[in-house]
Amino acid sequence: MSRRAAAACKGENRMTDVASLGLTANQVMVVGGFFSLTFAVFLGSAIFFFISRMDVSPAYRMAVTISGVIVTIAGYHYFQIMRSFEKAVTEGAGFNEAYRYVDWVVTVPLLLTELVLVLSIAPERRRALLNKLVPYSFLMIVLGYPGEISGDATTQWIFWALSMVFFVLILATLFGELSRQIQAENPAVQGTLKTLRTVLLVTWSFYPIAYLAPVLLADAGLGFVIVNVGYAIADITAKAGYGLMIHHVAKIKTEHSISANA
Amino acid sequence: MSRRAAAACKGENRMTDVASLGLTANQVMVVGGFFSLTFAVFLGSAIFFFISRMDVSPAYRMAVTISGVIVTIAGYHYFQIMRSFEKAVTEGAGFNEAYRYVDWVVTVPLLLTELVLVLSIAPERRRALLNKLVPYSFLMIVLGYPGEISGDATTQWIFWALSMVFFVLILATLFGELSRQIQAENPAVQGTLKTLRTVLLVTWSFYPIAYLAPVLLADAGLGFVIVNVGYAIADITAKAGYGLMIHHVAKIKTEHSISANA
Amino acid sequence: MSRRAAAACKGENRMTDVASLGLTANQVMVVGGFFSLTFAVFLGSAIFFFISRMDVSPAYRMAVTISGVIVTIAGYHYFQIMRSFEKAVTEGAGFNEAYRYVDWVVTVPLLLTELVLVLSIAPERRRALLNKLVPYSFLMIVLGYPGEISGDATTQWIFWALSMVFFVLILATLFGELSRQIQAENPAVQGTLKTLRTVLLVTWSFYPIAYLAPVLLADAGLGFVIVNVGYAIADITAKAGYGLMIHHVAKIKTEHSISANA
Amino acid sequence: MSRRAAAACKGENRMTDVASLGLTANQVMVVGGFFSLTFAVFLGSAIFFFISRMDVSPAYRMAVTISGVIVTIAGYHYFQIMRSFEKAVTEGAGFNEAYRYVDWVVTVPLLLTELVLVLSIAPERRRALLNKLVPYSFLMIVLGYPGEISGDATTQWIFWALSMVFFVLILATLFGELSRQIQAENPAVQGTLKTLRTVLLVTWSFYPIAYLAPVLLADAGLGFVIVNVGYAIADITAKAGYGLMIHHVAKIKTEHSISANA
Amino acid sequence: MSRRAAAACKGENRMTDVASLGLTANQVMVVGGFFSLTFAVFLGSAIFFFISRMDVSPAYRMAVTISGVIVTIAGYHYFQIMRSFEKAVTEGAGFNEAYRYVDWVVTVPLLLTELVLVLSIAPERRRALLNKLVPYSFLMIVLGYPGEISGDATTQWIFWALSMVFFVLILATLFGELSRQIQAENPAVQGTLKTLRTVLLVTWSFYPIAYLAPVLLADAGLGFVIVNVGYAIADITAKAGYGLMIHHVAKIKTEHSISANA
Amino acid sequence: MSRRAAAACKGENRMTDVASLGLTANQVMVVGGFFSLTFAVFLGSAIFFFISRMDVSPAYRMAVTISGVIVTIAGYHYFQIMRSFEKAVTEGAGFNEAYRYVDWVVTVPLLLTELVLVLSIAPERRRALLNKLVPYSFLMIVLGYPGEISGDATTQWIFWALSMVFFVLILATLFGELSRQIQAENPAVQGTLKTLRTVLLVTWSFYPIAYLAPVLLADAGLGFVIVNVGYAIADITAKAGYGLMIHHVAKIKTEHSISANA
Repeated sequence: MSRRAAAACKGENRMTDVASLGLTANQVMVVGGFFSLTFAVFLGSAIFFFISRMDVSPAYRMAVTISGVIVTIAGYHYFQIMRSFEKAVTEGAGFNEAYRYVDWVVTVPLLLTELVLVLSIAPERRRALLNKLVPYSFLMIVLGYPGEISGDATTQWIFWALSMVFFVLILATLFGELSRQIQAENPAVQGTLKTLRTVLLVTWSFYPIAYLAPVLLADAGLGFVIVNVGYAIADITAKAGYGLMIHHVAKIKTEHSISANA
Repeated sequence: MSRRAAAACKGENRMTDVASLGLTANQVMVVGGFFSLTFAVFLGSAIFFFISRMDVSPAYRMAVTISGVIVTIAGYHYFQIMRSFEKAVTEGAGFNEAYRYVDWVVTVPLLLTELVLVLSIAPERRRALLNKLVPYSFLMIVLGYPGEISGDATTQWIFWALSMVFFVLILATLFGELSRQIQAENPAVQGTLKTLRTVLLVTWSFYPIAYLAPVLLADAGLGFVIVNVGYAIADITAKAGYGLMIHHVAKIKTEHSISANA
Repeated sequence: MSRRAAAACKGENRMTDVASLGLTANQVMVVGGFFSLTFAVFLGSAIFFFISRMDVSPAYRMAVTISGVIVTIAGYHYFQIMRSFEKAVTEGAGFNEAYRYVDWVVTVPLLLTELVLVLSIAPERRRALLNKLVPYSFLMIVLGYPGEISGDATTQWIFWALSMVFFVLILATLFGELSRQIQAENPAVQGTLKTLRTVLLVTWSFYPIAYLAPVLLADAGLGFVIVNVGYAIADITAKAGYGLMIHHVAKIKTEHSISANA
Repeated sequence: MSRRAAAACKGENRMTDVASLGLTANQVMVVGGFFSLTFAVFLGSAIFFFISRMDVSPAYRMAVTISGVIVTIAGYHYFQIMRSFEKAVTEGAGFNEAYRYVDWVVTVPLLLTELVLVLSIAPERRRALLNKLVPYSFLMIVLGYPGEISGDATTQWIFWALSMVFFVLILATLFGELSRQIQAENPAVQGTLKTLRTVLLVTWSFYPIAYLAPVLLADAGLGFVIVNVGYAIADITAKAGYGLMIHHVAKIKTEHSISANA
Repeated sequence: MSRRAAAACKGENRMTDVASLGLTANQVMVVGGFFSLTFAVFLGSAIFFFISRMDVSPAYRMAVTISGVIVTIAGYHYFQIMRSFEKAVTEGAGFNEAYRYVDWVVTVPLLLTELVLVLSIAPERRRALLNKLVPYSFLMIVLGYPGEISGDATTQWIFWALSMVFFVLILATLFGELSRQIQAENPAVQGTLKTLRTVLLVTWSFYPIAYLAPVLLADAGLGFVIVNVGYAIADITAKAGYGLMIHHVAKIKTEHSISANA
Repeated sequence: MSRRAAAACKGENRMTDVASLGLTANQVMVVGGFFSLTFAVFLGSAIFFFISRMDVSPAYRMAVTISGVIVTIAGYHYFQIMRSFEKAVTEGAGFNEAYRYVDWVVTVPLLLTELVLVLSIAPERRRALLNKLVPYSFLMIVLGYPGEISGDATTQWIFWALSMVFFVLILATLFGELSRQIQAENPAVQGTLKTLRTVLLVTWSFYPIAYLAPVLLADAGLGFVIVNVGYAIADITAKAGYGLMIHHVAKIKTEHSISANA
């Protein structure tokens, strides 16, 4: 949004005014570099998933296809974020935070679906799980947004807490389900599923911490850098890295079922 | 359309003048974010449908291909809508509502065709159904347009009502047909068809409600946000979501016919 | 063409000066919307035809490939028409009518070839038919152009009449051929061929009517809208719609020959 | 080339100065339209050839692939010609004639190769033929260029005559070879080869006639239109049309050899 | 970053100010040429890897796919570096060093994974190796960055030394592993693995040397040229060249296992 | 590089200042036309090689793939050369010679590899050959560059001579190897290899001659035209033409080995 248009907008302007943060050239480079990196990783992993889907048995192919779709959508959004940041830095336009949230609204439910598809769960149970997880994830994201765009610490804390309720619910559900699966699975898959469970917990914990950076830090510029680099790293691990692990689980299961049949 | 060209246009200007709505920066972000999201979802689902069509038996492949074509066309139109909105906000140009309607004129009949193709209906009956549904959908959309672009509440109500006649006719026809199909189908498909029937009713009801938002709300800006976010959500569910369900029905039927033959 | 360049052109300027038509904003949206729609339909149907050509037996595959080529060429031209209209509205440049005619010069003979390829006609007869139809179609289009770009009603009527001679000759030839084919074909194809025959007559009749709109209507703006929307609808049905029917005929014949061999 | 750069060029400026020709708006539309058409035809036929190459037996596949490569190269050059013409009309830049000649330098030898590949000629004879035809075609084109860019009628006639020597040599060689082939081939191919021979003569005769248009006509603008439309039509028939006939010959031969083996 | 935006940044500006280096036109050409070359090599090798992956047995296909993904990501980053350099030269903007480092953060771990995948290592050992190598590579890159962007020689030496610790650790680990593998492998692969080991050592040694160029050289311009050309050459050999060797190892092993089974 | 940036560069400016050469409009057209032609040929031949690689047996497929990669890289560089020339002519920017040299640094070693791959040489000998040819080619190109960008005739002669040493070494090595191969090969391949040997010698001799054009000719403009057209022709024959011959050799060998096995 150009300055002229910004002036036409009534009320408090909550698009992050990057110019007012007084970022150093180095901070601009780091943030811009991480946006670019994230885009490149999603581009590369999209190619990888679409090429590699034929390596797994048909039963798990859909999970890998979904990984490809997720990183395509996320890659598109990081392209827009990168462009918005470039404009914010060079033309003084506002930095659009909404891209990130609309991306999560779509990709987080898809990530949960993908995980459930690759586990050996009976169809009815699978449906029941998704009927819980998908609405939780939706509420987690939507309730986080008002805090993200607010400049008021109290508001930020309130929405952080509301969002955290569903965050915890999702992780608890997944942790329980994964732990049950690990006991049921053959040893070859057990190790990977355990890693997946750990990675899931660690990766996701980046989000609430990055969220609070502008609240906790006095330096607005530093807060901005930490939020954005933190989210970028979290998005890479939670989408591309996670997709790779799903692919890995699918591949081990494919080899296991081939050798079982042989 | 630039201001200069706009000045050259005679009569009342009915392209939405976004600048006059006094949107807050946050509202601009949300609307722009949803347009971007819808585009990204259609991009991702187009890839998904074109890749996944080989997973279903040849009999249902055409339905999945049509899903891909629908989201490609709709994705193109959302790209234009996004571009038009960006120009409306940054350059003060008018926001072009027509893209949405010309999109519906093509995609809604295709959606109805796709549904009919995936159901187990005899060819003659199929033709008879489409000969009713396609003209209804055409009239529903064309009769809605004059109200959408009018600034007068009475005009809006009249065309809303006229459009609703065909809206109700379509849903009643589909509901009847789906209920008949559910009884005829094997249990595996029944559940999915029931969900499909519900989703159809819920999704489609977004449209008449979003349509009335500018009539019912005093705040023109809020009305604009609700219409556009509402239509975006409805388009995502009615096109990409619905296509996924059609794909799901096709996949279950494929597996069922394979195991029946084995 | 910029104003400067336009000034350099001698003689009467026959590029439609859109600014002088005094179109309302709504008319601009409708015309622009229809151009965009036509482009999107051709994009979507090109994907459909290229993907679906493997669904029909090799004998009819070339007809479906030609459908794909036709809508690709026509899609490219509508992209140029859309761009020319946008420039005409925003920069006051002339609107280029020639794109439409050069498109027809190529796509109409291809449409006739495609129809002949899908019918069960002996090679010699096929050649004889095309040797008549292709020159007729060429003359029909070339003779129509001087009237289209003329501002004089008498000239328009004369070239309309000249063009109509070949229009009638083509339709009479096709009608006769299709009627002969319908009797020779198996019942499954008969119905579709009858529909094709009707659609052909109805669709093509849009062209001479739209052609006369600026002659018959006093309001130049309304005439412009009717011509352009009329041609857009006619092009969609005559190219994409017609290609779909050809695909349908090819598919029924494929299934018929498979079951005949089984 | 911008005016500023043009001013920097010494000597007589031989890039066609389109502005000085005083073209009517209609002439601009027709020439621009034909350039656009030619590009669109090459785009469409490239897709057709690359898709259709699998329909012919491996022996003739290379000929069809070369057709695809020819129209790709020619399509690229018409894109540049179209762009150069647009700049010449709107910005007063010079119109670059060289694109056409550099295109011919590559595509004409390829066209001759393609023809020789599809005929049933023994390898040694094939090589001997190409060792004659390729240098002839090169000389024909290179000797034509100085006349094309000259403004002096005598120069134009001299280079026309020099170029015609090789033009006649090529056609005489091809005519003789084709006549020999026609007698040797089976009846199914004979007819097509006869048509090919006629089309070759007719199509190629467009070139020397179009070349002379600016010499013979007093009206420079009309001469420009005839040259450019004439070359465009000749290029379409000599490249895309001719490629289609080659494809047709290849297809008939493929079917013939299959039925001969069965 | 435009000058205006640059002025808005507080603190010391550490984006390389190319204008202040006083590069000769020749130096600009050489640096720009090498960036362009590196992009072109990555483009070409991406195509090569994606096409050639089917030439190796499924067991090694993933290694070749990863090579393709690596050069795609690196190619994207060199495109950005090229664009940033062009802007730095023509518009006086700062040259963004961060692209290089964010690229390495992703591609170096992938390169290590790719190598480990193509060696005949047991799964547990493979995991143990990667659990060492990936964190080492991450620390090596992250610890190098502060020195790269610092203008102070002491800082540069300190971070060079810190980074070198992990650099040496990685190479020592790989050298040991490769030497062990060479003894275990069949003779056909031994030679290639020995070359690989040497190339690895030589290629990687480019990085610490190029890093020190601006510290050791008095002429800032020459230092800039050496760093950038050195990194470009190192990136080409370490990514594309190394990928080719991995492909070669995979191909020899594929042929060996085929002949062993025959 | 814009004039402003050029002014910032210290020392002698060795980017060719095209404006100072006083090229005629015709010379500009010819040079621009040849750059465009070369790009188009590389585009077309890239498509050809990637499509045709399946026509040869797996043993020679890699050689054809490398041909495709070479023309892709060279095509990209000609695109940049074309763009740089356009800017040099219209905006008075310097013409970047470095693109050509960086292109050769990569494509010449690949061309040598491709030739060696298609010959029937034992692996050890192949490696020995490439270990000689690749460094020679590198030195040939790198030693030629300082002369190319120098304005001083003595410097140009010295580097021409240095570069020629390796030029002669490469050709002598290849000539010897090809002659040895010709004797060893079956008669069907002998002819093609003899042609290849001749074409190699003729094509490569273009380079040293074109190099000297600016030294030998008094007219700087004419020298510029001859260098650039000469290099363009040499690049087309040495890359696309040579690749076609390699493809031809591979095809003959494929057919020979098939008939030998039958």
